[in-house]
Amino acid sequence: MKDVQSQQDTRGVYINKVGVKNLVFPIEIRNREGEWVSTAATISLFVGLNAQQKGTHMSRFVEIISRKHRIDLMEMKTILEEMCEKLEAENSYIQLKFDYFIEKQAPVTGIPSLVNVGVEYSASLEKGDFEFDMRVTTPITTLCPCSKEISDYSAHNQRADVSIQIRRKKFLWIEQLVDIAEASSSSPVYSLLKRPDEKYVTEHAYDNPKFVEDVCREVKLRVDELENVREFCIEVESMESIHNHSAYAMVRG
Amino acid sequence: MKDVQSQQDTRGVYINKVGVKNLVFPIEIRNREGEWVSTAATISLFVGLNAQQKGTHMSRFVEIISRKHRIDLMEMKTILEEMCEKLEAENSYIQLKFDYFIEKQAPVTGIPSLVNVGVEYSASLEKGDFEFDMRVTTPITTLCPCSKEISDYSAHNQRADVSIQIRRKKFLWIEQLVDIAEASSSSPVYSLLKRPDEKYVTEHAYDNPKFVEDVCREVKLRVDELENVREFCIEVESMESIHNHSAYAMVRG
Amino acid sequence: MKDVQSQQDTRGVYINKVGVKNLVFPIEIRNREGEWVSTAATISLFVGLNAQQKGTHMSRFVEIISRKHRIDLMEMKTILEEMCEKLEAENSYIQLKFDYFIEKQAPVTGIPSLVNVGVEYSASLEKGDFEFDMRVTTPITTLCPCSKEISDYSAHNQRADVSIQIRRKKFLWIEQLVDIAEASSSSPVYSLLKRPDEKYVTEHAYDNPKFVEDVCREVKLRVDELENVREFCIEVESMESIHNHSAYAMVRG
Amino acid sequence: MKDVQSQQDTRGVYINKVGVKNLVFPIEIRNREGEWVSTAATISLFVGLNAQQKGTHMSRFVEIISRKHRIDLMEMKTILEEMCEKLEAENSYIQLKFDYFIEKQAPVTGIPSLVNVGVEYSASLEKGDFEFDMRVTTPITTLCPCSKEISDYSAHNQRADVSIQIRRKKFLWIEQLVDIAEASSSSPVYSLLKRPDEKYVTEHAYDNPKFVEDVCREVKLRVDELENVREFCIEVESMESIHNHSAYAMVRG
Repeated sequence: MKDVQSQQDTRGVYINKVGVKNLVFPIEIRNREGEWVSTAATISLFVGLNAQQKGTHMSRFVEIISRKHRIDLMEMKTILEEMCEKLEAENSYIQLKFDYFIEKQAPVTGIPSLVNVGVEYSASLEKGDFEFDMRVTTPITTLCPCSKEISDYSAHNQRADVSIQIRRKKFLWIEQLVDIAEASSSSPVYSLLKRPDEKYVTEHAYDNPKFVEDVCREVKLRVDELENVREFCIEVESMESIHNHSAYAMVRG
Repeated sequence: MKDVQSQQDTRGVYINKVGVKNLVFPIEIRNREGEWVSTAATISLFVGLNAQQKGTHMSRFVEIISRKHRIDLMEMKTILEEMCEKLEAENSYIQLKFDYFIEKQAPVTGIPSLVNVGVEYSASLEKGDFEFDMRVTTPITTLCPCSKEISDYSAHNQRADVSIQIRRKKFLWIEQLVDIAEASSSSPVYSLLKRPDEKYVTEHAYDNPKFVEDVCREVKLRVDELENVREFCIEVESMESIHNHSAYAMVRG
Repeated sequence: MKDVQSQQDTRGVYINKVGVKNLVFPIEIRNREGEWVSTAATISLFVGLNAQQKGTHMSRFVEIISRKHRIDLMEMKTILEEMCEKLEAENSYIQLKFDYFIEKQAPVTGIPSLVNVGVEYSASLEKGDFEFDMRVTTPITTLCPCSKEISDYSAHNQRADVSIQIRRKKFLWIEQLVDIAEASSSSPVYSLLKRPDEKYVTEHAYDNPKFVEDVCREVKLRVDELENVREFCIEVESMESIHNHSAYAMVRG
Repeated sequence: MKDVQSQQDTRGVYINKVGVKNLVFPIEIRNREGEWVSTAATISLFVGLNAQQKGTHMSRFVEIISRKHRIDLMEMKTILEEMCEKLEAENSYIQLKFDYFIEKQAPVTGIPSLVNVGVEYSASLEKGDFEFDMRVTTPITTLCPCSKEISDYSAHNQRADVSIQIRRKKFLWIEQLVDIAEASSSSPVYSLLKRPDEKYVTEHAYDNPKFVEDVCREVKLRVDELENVREFCIEVESMESIHNHSAYAMVRG
């Protein structure tokens, strides 16, 4: 059968990324305790396509990823190398998006429960140079310092998402970025809170009022303490309880 | 050209709804002041297809809706009648989903701003019998009565969505259902609040703590006062500020 | 600490469903081969709340589901019974939404790969009466019979989603509903197709042109052959390659 | 009342963007014929916040945008200038996302209908320097050249989205980018096609097979002909009719 994709292309246009997008597959991710945690990931795989070739061979991407299940930093590098080899490409790219599960103890009763955080892994191999970006989106509580200051009692508060994106050669546990987001919040969120816990988080949030600007700045200072961070982007989006829109802040470096 | 759709079908299966789904079109909706408000709607149009006919004629749905722009109750009935006629059907259905805009005055300064509410219109004409369902989803604030009671100060609060779905022969303004949702809330939400307004809504919410159960029940009692309501479904979903999931309550009748 | 939720309510409104919505948890589902397949599910848990009680106890839902991991029909019944007991309710409800993974062999080369299908489980226990609804959404190909008939060559085709919802006391494998959807399609879809496979599915779809009406009717006739089906709703939505909207058909019974 | 936002911040962190996200408002956009087209937009407004100030004043963003309705390039510049002035900021940013409506004639019968395309406007004013990015996402049809070549008859085809993002000082009509996307496709899509039109688009797509790579390259060559383009990113995502995932290609420059 004719291989249309391998035909010569005369238009002279290099394609930065071409491949398969939004495959959904079960995978396992290793947690800080060393255990493999199951989840379902949305996966995209691309290569750069040289200007002389008409098309890439889409089925090869799926062949490569179909044999993988447990995904860590080393495995992503292996996948990128296999893509370069099997697709005869200089550059390859992988993206994974998945819900990851953190076990937390309720702050007073200590009862454990799982909270989902959103994770994106993006890795690239460009002319042999491996780069790894991870982005972790952690739900937190923000309590408005202005509302607290100007009101005779109470203060509006709400759920917010803290997204921390980091480019770094050394590995980082997802849990480390969750810890940073929670330490910078008015309060962490939990799946399971009994009444003594609810009293605690209510008062704790009131004692730690934070604008989205405050959360962003505190996360930034904590990210500065991580070693070998080459680039970062910190975003905080607060689903304001008094509005039908979000408050948003972003710092990048 | 052969008309494949008009061919005889021998499988003996009546199709309850067949047509076009998720057309996006600009429309206008009349507000309580009688003005036409512009928005973009996602529109679906269906007919029932008798068991003897192979297929419906999809392009006719688009021909009918393409000539419409200002949509009210009478216009929906006209569209349903045209569908029955042009598609030789006994039953026809229309659904519209759109953002609708309510002008509100901030509670203290009185400064006006628009808040978007979600609206769904569903109408049907079955053997000449016209039915109209409307569903309005209004953002509000809920403040937790338990958190207020057990904490020495403050209380967790958050944005919640109140969805009120009503089946009724008589017309109802979207604004009437928004009013009911807001009257049953810890506080309405606004797009624009200056500091005196923010102080007001913060304290007002604390003075009116409501579980999702409370909001649901109060909406229900207010819906009971509307005349000619034949069926309803009230849902409240509160994006809990202390959790990464929602609290939810539903009453139907 | 005061138990606000247990207070007397005087408004006289029974709440049909109240509880937690959109928890995201890792779970395992048993496949037709008897193996447990890992995925991430979005879970909602509700009870009916009698008119005399102010509120339900939200944390108990999370306590119950936190101890579960492998979910099958019996386990859902157990969860529903625990909810009725722990929340002192007559009626309880559970909903799970998750991606499920089917291994398929490419039609000519036989190379295996996973395809994700969407699954929703809804179960209820009302005054001791257990009901189970499952809904499986399978991606397929539809090829337009009209386009084939009127064109000198080719025919427009596209991905479509077949959603089969079934209420039934006896258990059914997810795979059985996937098989029905695929048998009723112009062609199944696959994650991995080599060129001989691509030739096969291209020609196979052209040899089996199907309107959304055809797919709906064929699924309906196959569902009729299942035993003990008490209610069903079959929906087909085809993301038309020649339009920016969908063609849609629905049969229920 | 105390102005908490204006307090001194000692953490020394400049915030790149802070403001309101995902306001939904009705707006009007001018089309190529000079008419104002109504739609609903999701709007975000940000400023840069200097390191010495604790917070921005969120309500001022809403005050500024509430007075606007007809949005064109000049109006966006005015909004950015007002933000810098009212929020005492050096840098300001605006983003709008909306559905825009293009009237098209069916290719044979000439019957007109509207097709929605997705549009994003992003503009910034950084130290007085105005930049404008627009991104238009046009639905098209792709027909697979490999499937056509290796099959005895027919070829798989599907809807694809072509996203063209352009940074450019001179204004560009949305319609110009739609024209480029459609000229680079196997076929444009339409909302309304009668049978002679459907025959035409079916055969036309078969006569113009295109991989996502082909569409990307042809769009790139057409974008090269536009004057004053400073940066661009072209993405093509094809919702493959034979898979449950997309084929994707991207070229940037």
